[in-house]
Amino acid sequence: MTTHSMHAPLLLTPGPLVTSARTKNAMLHDWGSWDGDFNALTRRVGERLLAIIDGQSDYVCVPLQGSGTFAVEAAIGSLLPPAGKLLVLSNGAYGKRMAQLTATMGRRVETADFGETAPVDPAVLRQRLEDDPEISHVGVIHCETSTGILNPIEAIARMVAAAGRKLIIDSMSGFGALPLSSKTVPFEAVIGSSNKCLEGVPGMGFVLVRREALEQAAGRSHSLSLDLYEQWRYMQKTGQWRYTPPTHVVAAFDAALAQYEEEGGGPARLARYSNNCATLIAALQAIGLRSFLPAQIQAPIIVTVHAPRHPAWNFGEFYARVKAHGVLLYPGKLTAVDTFRVGCIGAIDAADIARGVDAIARVLAEMGIRE
Amino acid sequence: MTTHSMHAPLLLTPGPLVTSARTKNAMLHDWGSWDGDFNALTRRVGERLLAIIDGQSDYVCVPLQGSGTFAVEAAIGSLLPPAGKLLVLSNGAYGKRMAQLTATMGRRVETADFGETAPVDPAVLRQRLEDDPEISHVGVIHCETSTGILNPIEAIARMVAAAGRKLIIDSMSGFGALPLSSKTVPFEAVIGSSNKCLEGVPGMGFVLVRREALEQAAGRSHSLSLDLYEQWRYMQKTGQWRYTPPTHVVAAFDAALAQYEEEGGGPARLARYSNNCATLIAALQAIGLRSFLPAQIQAPIIVTVHAPRHPAWNFGEFYARVKAHGVLLYPGKLTAVDTFRVGCIGAIDAADIARGVDAIARVLAEMGIRE
Ligand SMILES: Cc1ncc(COP(=O)(O)O)c(C=O)c1O
Ligand SMILES: Cc1ncc(COP(=O)(O)O)c(C=O)c1O
Repeated sequence: MTTHSMHAPLLLTPGPLVTSARTKNAMLHDWGSWDGDFNALTRRVGERLLAIIDGQSDYVCVPLQGSGTFAVEAAIGSLLPPAGKLLVLSNGAYGKRMAQLTATMGRRVETADFGETAPVDPAVLRQRLEDDPEISHVGVIHCETSTGILNPIEAIARMVAAAGRKLIIDSMSGFGALPLSSKTVPFEAVIGSSNKCLEGVPGMGFVLVRREALEQAAGRSHSLSLDLYEQWRYMQKTGQWRYTPPTHVVAAFDAALAQYEEEGGGPARLARYSNNCATLIAALQAIGLRSFLPAQIQAPIIVTVHAPRHPAWNFGEFYARVKAHGVLLYPGKLTAVDTFRVGCIGAIDAADIARGVDAIARVLAEMGIRE
Repeated sequence: MTTHSMHAPLLLTPGPLVTSARTKNAMLHDWGSWDGDFNALTRRVGERLLAIIDGQSDYVCVPLQGSGTFAVEAAIGSLLPPAGKLLVLSNGAYGKRMAQLTATMGRRVETADFGETAPVDPAVLRQRLEDDPEISHVGVIHCETSTGILNPIEAIARMVAAAGRKLIIDSMSGFGALPLSSKTVPFEAVIGSSNKCLEGVPGMGFVLVRREALEQAAGRSHSLSLDLYEQWRYMQKTGQWRYTPPTHVVAAFDAALAQYEEEGGGPARLARYSNNCATLIAALQAIGLRSFLPAQIQAPIIVTVHAPRHPAWNFGEFYARVKAHGVLLYPGKLTAVDTFRVGCIGAIDAADIARGVDAIARVLAEMGIRE
């Protein structure tokens, strides 16, 4: 089911990514942000997102304008009480960012650093929680997009709950594909965005948060724009977004969520991405390129690939040449190893992946790096 | 030049508003946010915005994800030093909001309150600045959208400059139509958004800020996401947005700005909106409806209209019935007087306005309020 047109660029990136024509066409209408029809659209998006985590009874959905980082900052600024302390389980750039934004807002934060190449170790987490009773909340990245590492979310969540603390999950790059049911995984809030595995366009994030936790969040936020409690309260009262919503982005997101459900929801999305990922790793291997992560910690979202060890290697030139074949790749984000990244997500399938790797192979030959 | 299709709803609202088909069609492409083509697009948008204020040499453009309020908060959080104090000149909801967001971030702020029905009085401003030497910055709303009042921006700017203070202008609803040249009006920063007089779709704001002021803003922001300095520095260094940009919204904005220039820029836009506004007020008068503001303080952006004094009047019913005719109006925002609002901006012309008033007239007859 290649929904992707051969004429548009093939984005093998972790979002923004390839969206379907139907999703983009949903932006060809101007909505009144005050209007009942748009309020209904917003409500439907929220219901669809809550259903993904089986959260209809205990959670609420608070959408937020801006990029995903804005939603992470809003969640922490509103859910972490002034007297609280956040422990961030970090194994990459997005863990670091969560700690940084918490420090910037003047809250207490500590980091458990697992380097860049290993998943979070729940035993270390247990020890940190035992050692420091002041830690009230734990933050973790579901799929650490800077490498593609899948963190063991169930074990982490159980550990946090057993220690009587609260878990905040940044599942920006995994939400909707990586399984996450509130019925089996205890968490306080999960943060996602429109433009990753749900295959919408960028411009909004969302927080699915336990209603009881949000009800206690009045007056905590360091920021008016990023006040999750007020955003929710206003929407509850009026059905509208508190400030001007990105109407076209929301409409595209609703269309993307309809296609998500039609495709078969999370299991179908995971199956397609897993197939994309397996196809990608095998095809890269066939042309002599090695993926960076061991298979058991590789999320089917984005694959980090070792740069070829060759004097002619140059990512800038490689990128430009692959782009000339209509395919966009993604730079590496590791500090110590020379890598690049290839996304597995978006409205693409294994045939698109094969086309992407074909372009890579041709370019490596053009550059004299591979036969 | 009616660019507006008869089949789409006619939004007589102050943004989101009617955008042209060309602007919406620019969203039918998926951009890589890391890609050079998208960076070029971002750069072009910034250059186009700087040209509007003749600011190419002394100002920089910092776009920001989110709604306009996010950009106002980012500007104040970054430009107001910790030891500074902001005086907000307030005559409506958006002035109040500027004061509120400054207080929320824990900065010193005072308000000069001019009620809801009068423009800012520069003599009062002079007195406040004389009385309080601690005031370092002054904030003002160019067109106070809650009523449509035009504030005397030149007189205010001269007064602030003469007193050696810095001016921050929220020109969200006026930017691009109301004249504002940095060559004749001294200001530190002006804030606008994509979805008002520039006729893009919502999802981003921007701050045009004196380069020297921004260079001193490192480390001030209360928020990582809303840090204007870091947003600028990253963009300078990489050409990219710091966090995922709303790519489709930016592309639509670029297309909207191209049409703005082709139409004849600010003067042409102002002429069309002024004609829309005059047509609107005259047509409303012809059916017995009075606009709220005296002509000399009415900006040609949005018109506040007295609700008919009639027992059958009910805004909810009125709105729904006018909507059934394909026209969306806007509720009033005055606290003491019963009003509704009609926008003059968007990709619409006087013929659209006439159609809107025609729908209003029919509905008032349907409701038994007018013959
Ligand atoms: C895990 C994770 N967290 C946060 C973000 C930040 O999202 P944004 O770039 O939309 O601010 C990303 C973006 O890729 C991400 O992958
Ligand atoms: C003058 C003014 N300031 C600020 C805003 C806030 O913009 P937003 O609703 O995009 O946050 C508006 C919105 O209409 C406005 O008119």
